[in-house]
Amino acid sequence: MLIGRKTSAMDYQHILDKIAVEVNSLPITGKVASYIPELATVKASHFGVHLHSIDESDFHIGEHQNRFSIQSISKVFTLALALKTVGPKVWERLDVEPSGDPFNSLVQLEYEKGIPRNPFINAGALVISDILISAYKNPKEELLNFIKKLASTETIEYDDRVAASEIKHSHRNASLVNLMKSFGNIENDVDKVLDFYCNHCAIAMSCEELSKTFMLFVNNGKVQQDGEQILNPSTTKRINAIMLTCGFYDESGEFAFRVGIPGKSGVGGGIVAIHPEKYSVAVWSPPLNEKGNSELGMHVLELLTTHTGSSVF
Amino acid sequence: MLIGRKTSAMDYQHILDKIAVEVNSLPITGKVASYIPELATVKASHFGVHLHSIDESDFHIGEHQNRFSIQSISKVFTLALALKTVGPKVWERLDVEPSGDPFNSLVQLEYEKGIPRNPFINAGALVISDILISAYKNPKEELLNFIKKLASTETIEYDDRVAASEIKHSHRNASLVNLMKSFGNIENDVDKVLDFYCNHCAIAMSCEELSKTFMLFVNNGKVQQDGEQILNPSTTKRINAIMLTCGFYDESGEFAFRVGIPGKSGVGGGIVAIHPEKYSVAVWSPPLNEKGNSELGMHVLELLTTHTGSSVF
Amino acid sequence: MLIGRKTSAMDYQHILDKIAVEVNSLPITGKVASYIPELATVKASHFGVHLHSIDESDFHIGEHQNRFSIQSISKVFTLALALKTVGPKVWERLDVEPSGDPFNSLVQLEYEKGIPRNPFINAGALVISDILISAYKNPKEELLNFIKKLASTETIEYDDRVAASEIKHSHRNASLVNLMKSFGNIENDVDKVLDFYCNHCAIAMSCEELSKTFMLFVNNGKVQQDGEQILNPSTTKRINAIMLTCGFYDESGEFAFRVGIPGKSGVGGGIVAIHPEKYSVAVWSPPLNEKGNSELGMHVLELLTTHTGSSVF
Amino acid sequence: MLIGRKTSAMDYQHILDKIAVEVNSLPITGKVASYIPELATVKASHFGVHLHSIDESDFHIGEHQNRFSIQSISKVFTLALALKTVGPKVWERLDVEPSGDPFNSLVQLEYEKGIPRNPFINAGALVISDILISAYKNPKEELLNFIKKLASTETIEYDDRVAASEIKHSHRNASLVNLMKSFGNIENDVDKVLDFYCNHCAIAMSCEELSKTFMLFVNNGKVQQDGEQILNPSTTKRINAIMLTCGFYDESGEFAFRVGIPGKSGVGGGIVAIHPEKYSVAVWSPPLNEKGNSELGMHVLELLTTHTGSSVF
Repeated sequence: MLIGRKTSAMDYQHILDKIAVEVNSLPITGKVASYIPELATVKASHFGVHLHSIDESDFHIGEHQNRFSIQSISKVFTLALALKTVGPKVWERLDVEPSGDPFNSLVQLEYEKGIPRNPFINAGALVISDILISAYKNPKEELLNFIKKLASTETIEYDDRVAASEIKHSHRNASLVNLMKSFGNIENDVDKVLDFYCNHCAIAMSCEELSKTFMLFVNNGKVQQDGEQILNPSTTKRINAIMLTCGFYDESGEFAFRVGIPGKSGVGGGIVAIHPEKYSVAVWSPPLNEKGNSELGMHVLELLTTHTGSSVF
Repeated sequence: MLIGRKTSAMDYQHILDKIAVEVNSLPITGKVASYIPELATVKASHFGVHLHSIDESDFHIGEHQNRFSIQSISKVFTLALALKTVGPKVWERLDVEPSGDPFNSLVQLEYEKGIPRNPFINAGALVISDILISAYKNPKEELLNFIKKLASTETIEYDDRVAASEIKHSHRNASLVNLMKSFGNIENDVDKVLDFYCNHCAIAMSCEELSKTFMLFVNNGKVQQDGEQILNPSTTKRINAIMLTCGFYDESGEFAFRVGIPGKSGVGGGIVAIHPEKYSVAVWSPPLNEKGNSELGMHVLELLTTHTGSSVF
Repeated sequence: MLIGRKTSAMDYQHILDKIAVEVNSLPITGKVASYIPELATVKASHFGVHLHSIDESDFHIGEHQNRFSIQSISKVFTLALALKTVGPKVWERLDVEPSGDPFNSLVQLEYEKGIPRNPFINAGALVISDILISAYKNPKEELLNFIKKLASTETIEYDDRVAASEIKHSHRNASLVNLMKSFGNIENDVDKVLDFYCNHCAIAMSCEELSKTFMLFVNNGKVQQDGEQILNPSTTKRINAIMLTCGFYDESGEFAFRVGIPGKSGVGGGIVAIHPEKYSVAVWSPPLNEKGNSELGMHVLELLTTHTGSSVF
Repeated sequence: MLIGRKTSAMDYQHILDKIAVEVNSLPITGKVASYIPELATVKASHFGVHLHSIDESDFHIGEHQNRFSIQSISKVFTLALALKTVGPKVWERLDVEPSGDPFNSLVQLEYEKGIPRNPFINAGALVISDILISAYKNPKEELLNFIKKLASTETIEYDDRVAASEIKHSHRNASLVNLMKSFGNIENDVDKVLDFYCNHCAIAMSCEELSKTFMLFVNNGKVQQDGEQILNPSTTKRINAIMLTCGFYDESGEFAFRVGIPGKSGVGGGIVAIHPEKYSVAVWSPPLNEKGNSELGMHVLELLTTHTGSSVF
């Protein structure tokens, strides 16, 4: 184990290659998300990793440029945009605590009178959507521009078919929005909130694009390409803290325990994680474990922080 | 703000002094713990901070050498001793996820069939006590020796009056142990488990002693004094991860958000926190906020990581 | 106390008059329902009782012919119509157990995978609405005709203003319907279900009309006026059993304990109750107690069953 | 079906014989209680029914004089004795509402600060035990004398082996008592409460004895043998109401729905039920359904009230 030792740029490719070998010999376990038809058709064998280092080098294995549905990873973008737009007032409408229990969202939401536990459970992300709808005339365009700027590419888009499918299967999220609206914590029309939410979950991006956009959280809130300070450093650190404590549903403790860096997963099989001083890394492997996180993705990231000694702990 | 900048040894005293001034002007809010008479008599005005840096320097303000009841901070010691003794088998009997809800301990414990969420809620610490009772003929002595070795002092003791008072008021903990025993997750007699648990919560230590013992978690599991590797580095990092995600009851997310380093609080008004590469710091101020954590302690540590730019994020 | 003694027709008026005197001296406590403006404007001082006996005599005090919003009392009518229409298949989609906890509807519904506890909590009544929408081309007309037939009057109507107001404030019910739809227990459009539900809650009836319609449950399922057997006797008894165990939200046990006959309340301040061999009685007094049941209504019915010795126990 | 028709004494034996034939052809389903070894050894094929009518006639089939462990049926005796002894003050320490959920006891108890939902869930019966311990120097003897008087027999006893086995496996009940004691709702030593509770559950009685003792609830609180008024009529009716709403755990609604009279079951396979104006009946068949009630017992009683038309609804 190399814990504590500084890892030079070159090592990353070597380590990724080693991980690729280790991972190759593993059986595919887990199940591709099936709650909407569009996600269920994705092949289980897809696999890609892209690591972007603080010194602007790129390292990758597999299908690092294939786009996939980022799903809940989008919640980090909407949170960042909301904090950039309305500032800490965001925290008047939601909290920053881990939610504890997967099936608890409705339960806690009812006990806690419509105030979601954190911005990464569905209820919290729906409140963030509501905040952005109130703040912008065209929140979809605004969010896409925000992501394009961070990714330095113009071609990222909403996947309309995935979005349409999500909307069709959004009864549980509709239940959450209505419950929060009954407590006065949703300002806009229920349908508008669901539409924006389902769309931002349906954005398609590649590991390369995700790792580049998440450099914002390595660079203390600065856009790497042009040096613009989009978020202040303290806000950036706070988003990182929320990723670490709440980024993996009720497996967040496990991820902190095994991997040890902030990150966020999506049911499309993607995980992005960052080391605040070293790199941003994105993994894609569609089969999910029981908690809804990419089985192989978790494994790759555990190997990465072990081999590079780069846990924040 | 000095984020990202290296803080030399000298700065720490300067920063602590500055914090002392800032803190002096604050009104005392919060309430001294009153659930047992022995804790209720402690004066609200006590205040001390002790920081021990990676290069073995000491910095302090206030009553840094006064001993107080460490209460739940002891759960970090028992977890470390259990992991040292029986290794990762510990995790067959409890989990590493944040618990989500303060009043949930019994609820979750019932739904999750007697497997506590993590080692820092009462249920989890009671299982750890049970593990140590099974492992050692004299677990109380063993634990005390473990702590004395880490603190390099022979005078640390159980406070018998506090322990006796805790035992007398331990019906809620007795409820937890009995519930877990009904699920087969407690091996020893209920009374033995409660006795050991109440005793280790009643250990009295000073900020100086606490900050020194917690250097174990900065030093990757090595005892600073003699270099003995007590825990392997990976286990150490994992304990740090659990402190960050679960160290402050249902305010753990808030602590990660505002302070940004691993730590553990106790209802005696103490908090210990560590930066994995820089320092270990202990604060003592008895008045607690609504979540049961030292009000002033939280504030001091937020100022410390802000002024020193030493969040792990 | 006259427990056990047979009460002749004449006694009822005497007893009601006595109750009127007792009740007159009581202070008005409780609060008129305010969750929709249309209910909030109703005067707290309204008061009426109407008792219809098995031998077709009528007894009354106060405003027994004033119509008011029957609200949840309508759930007995929709249940009866659903059982008449689709029979015991109804019980494949909901249960007959008391729900235990007021704020539990969403909680239990989530744990129990979208199967409501009973037809008298909102979730259950919404499933019944869904069943009737599937069964009838024009369920609103069908329900109104059913009630008109039982009441022997053509003038009963939906109160459109109340219904419109309910729909506008139905986010919590929308939350329930969406949650059940996510579990596959709602067949029709969410909006259709809410519309029918809000409308049937907005039916306006008088104490006289209510007591007459509820004779169906005294007469073993026969319409008193023309002798038509609408429900079989066993179904009637089962509806009575559900009224007794579930008719008063989380105060059902208290009602059984104090009053001792089956009944159903509504937040419009109405309560209908029946003795299976003796009478049907309706009370109206808008101020509600903390559990949402008419404060005075409960009291009147307790006096009635005590003075007449007509508890079913 | 004979609904509504008066059933003469002679009919009961005829109906019981008919039920015996119907029941004979049924397969044995359900499972004999196994949580303590002493109950697990009871043969599944035991079967007995005893009905005692208001005119003091006896009717029976099968092993109506074999004694078995009455278990939770004893909770009706302790409640009656507590109400006789301290009166309605009992209701300051527990409620009369159905509990809703089987595994909820601890959950609700925590939310509702140690006030049990009703006297027939374990938590409630433990509070009743505590009340009797406070009231009597020798509560065990007092309770036994109370039951012997009602049964007109001197030979009823605690089964010491069953009681000892219950005490050994009472961790879950110990959890409940400790939780309530932490809320201040238990006056005596935890062990004393558990000892009395486990003993009264271990009383052994026959169907004949049970049906005779429960005549108290048919006779408005009078002892049939000597006419002594032990409980006032109103208290008796209230106990009947609690049996109906809470007598069968989370199957109470189902029992009211299918059988339609007050009753109480025990995991020893016994059920006692009464019609307030007609009879008291006890059934014994050890195999339990999923909710912990005698599978065949429920069936027999459903047949009985159907064939005799004697539901209270």
